[in-house]
Amino acid sequence: MSRATTFAVQVQFGDCDPAGIVFFPNFSRWMDAASLHFFVQCGVPPWRELVKTTGIIGTPLLEIHTRFLQPATYGETLEVHTDIEEWRRKVFIQRHRVMRNETLLCEGRETRAFCIRDAEGRLRSIPVPDDIRTLCA
Amino acid sequence: MSRATTFAVQVQFGDCDPAGIVFFPNFSRWMDAASLHFFVQCGVPPWRELVKTTGIIGTPLLEIHTRFLQPATYGETLEVHTDIEEWRRKVFIQRHRVMRNETLLCEGRETRAFCIRDAEGRLRSIPVPDDIRTLCA
Amino acid sequence: MSRATTFAVQVQFGDCDPAGIVFFPNFSRWMDAASLHFFVQCGVPPWRELVKTTGIIGTPLLEIHTRFLQPATYGETLEVHTDIEEWRRKVFIQRHRVMRNETLLCEGRETRAFCIRDAEGRLRSIPVPDDIRTLCA
Amino acid sequence: MSRATTFAVQVQFGDCDPAGIVFFPNFSRWMDAASLHFFVQCGVPPWRELVKTTGIIGTPLLEIHTRFLQPATYGETLEVHTDIEEWRRKVFIQRHRVMRNETLLCEGRETRAFCIRDAEGRLRSIPVPDDIRTLCA
Repeated sequence: MSRATTFAVQVQFGDCDPAGIVFFPNFSRWMDAASLHFFVQCGVPPWRELVKTTGIIGTPLLEIHTRFLQPATYGETLEVHTDIEEWRRKVFIQRHRVMRNETLLCEGRETRAFCIRDAEGRLRSIPVPDDIRTLCA
Repeated sequence: MSRATTFAVQVQFGDCDPAGIVFFPNFSRWMDAASLHFFVQCGVPPWRELVKTTGIIGTPLLEIHTRFLQPATYGETLEVHTDIEEWRRKVFIQRHRVMRNETLLCEGRETRAFCIRDAEGRLRSIPVPDDIRTLCA
Repeated sequence: MSRATTFAVQVQFGDCDPAGIVFFPNFSRWMDAASLHFFVQCGVPPWRELVKTTGIIGTPLLEIHTRFLQPATYGETLEVHTDIEEWRRKVFIQRHRVMRNETLLCEGRETRAFCIRDAEGRLRSIPVPDDIRTLCA
Repeated sequence: MSRATTFAVQVQFGDCDPAGIVFFPNFSRWMDAASLHFFVQCGVPPWRELVKTTGIIGTPLLEIHTRFLQPATYGETLEVHTDIEEWRRKVFIQRHRVMRNETLLCEGRETRAFCIRDAEGRLRSIPVPDDIRTLCA
């Protein structure tokens, strides 16, 4: 089990499309914000600090799988509930549930890896650092 | 088998994040644009016209599943290759492959449904219209 | 003088560009959110409700003028301070100051008009409604 | 007089708001893309290359002034016409006119400066480099 965090979202007019509902890539945007918020809440420095001491530039995505159950619209306050469902050696599965009060609107699973830049400047995944995993437990 | 369409994307500076690579929700944004482009290429009117004759407001998403294989950055030209992988009675699976020349960067499958508004203004999915399915074959 | 409201913004990783600073159109996005927030705080219904009783679809922009004084980055909490600087017969000038604590990062003036749709579906500005102006005083 | 370039934009469904028209910060986004496109067309390397040889990280904005004359909607193809209206010692004024065929939809002036990072990592503007100015003439 990991820690669990909550990230609040105020849905804006500009987040919505001509059908009057949230344009779905914004849910991915909010899950990405909730992902970093999770690590910062666990005590991990923001990526621009972490890169200086460890070379880690962040946790790029390898895969996302998201189900949309109910639409949302502007003026609503949502909560993104985030935890880590599984740690593997080089990747982890982060789960986000977007709620409006007790109603689940959207559920997503992200497969991410901690990445550094190699000598040629290319992104390369590294094993999940033990100290970060401990912070998130 | 369905028709297949290609949608060009010029990656912009503002599509990229502090790691210098495309911020991933933009891939979902481009797939959504490629989805509508597919229908328009097949002869389906844009949603704001279709709603007047059929009540259909568009094809909201029920589910997305996307794998990210290679990053992209600004100044690059990408192509989104789109087709319909499967038609079911009330939903369809649209597939998008984002290519940089011969390299597959990102592959996504979207489950979508044609939707109308019911008398209370709520979105409600309808069976895939036969005439639209025929246009896309 | 008008009322003045404050709108909080948490800057996200995805709001920032490859230079590591907020991509500037996001400041316009936050000012738009602060604009609607101002009216809702003053007791004006959200546009999707107001349209039903008055035909008003919102306050589209005629002009913006924005100065950028200091950059911002992700993890920071900003505040947008909003008021109405001037009411004219058919337009109003809304002012937004984006602050990080005591530091002014960005200041914008927006010229907006209340709009309805005419019989052909085109947007048309109307005189500022007296009751709305009173609510905002 | 400077060179003049043209940048094409396909307006997407997701660029539009619940009023069915382009959400205005997208015009700023397109002008930013047109700004970089202008320099690349003039022969200036993309910022991620230029930073290696000159330290220049790009041309952050100091000020924008934009007028919105006509709305646009999805499915439309627009053109952004860009030139440099004025070079001063440390800043320049770039002008963008967004056209739909012969109709001017939106006109913006951006005040920008070429910037480097100083030893503390802060952005600092530098005089406009002569060689870049020559390329754009």
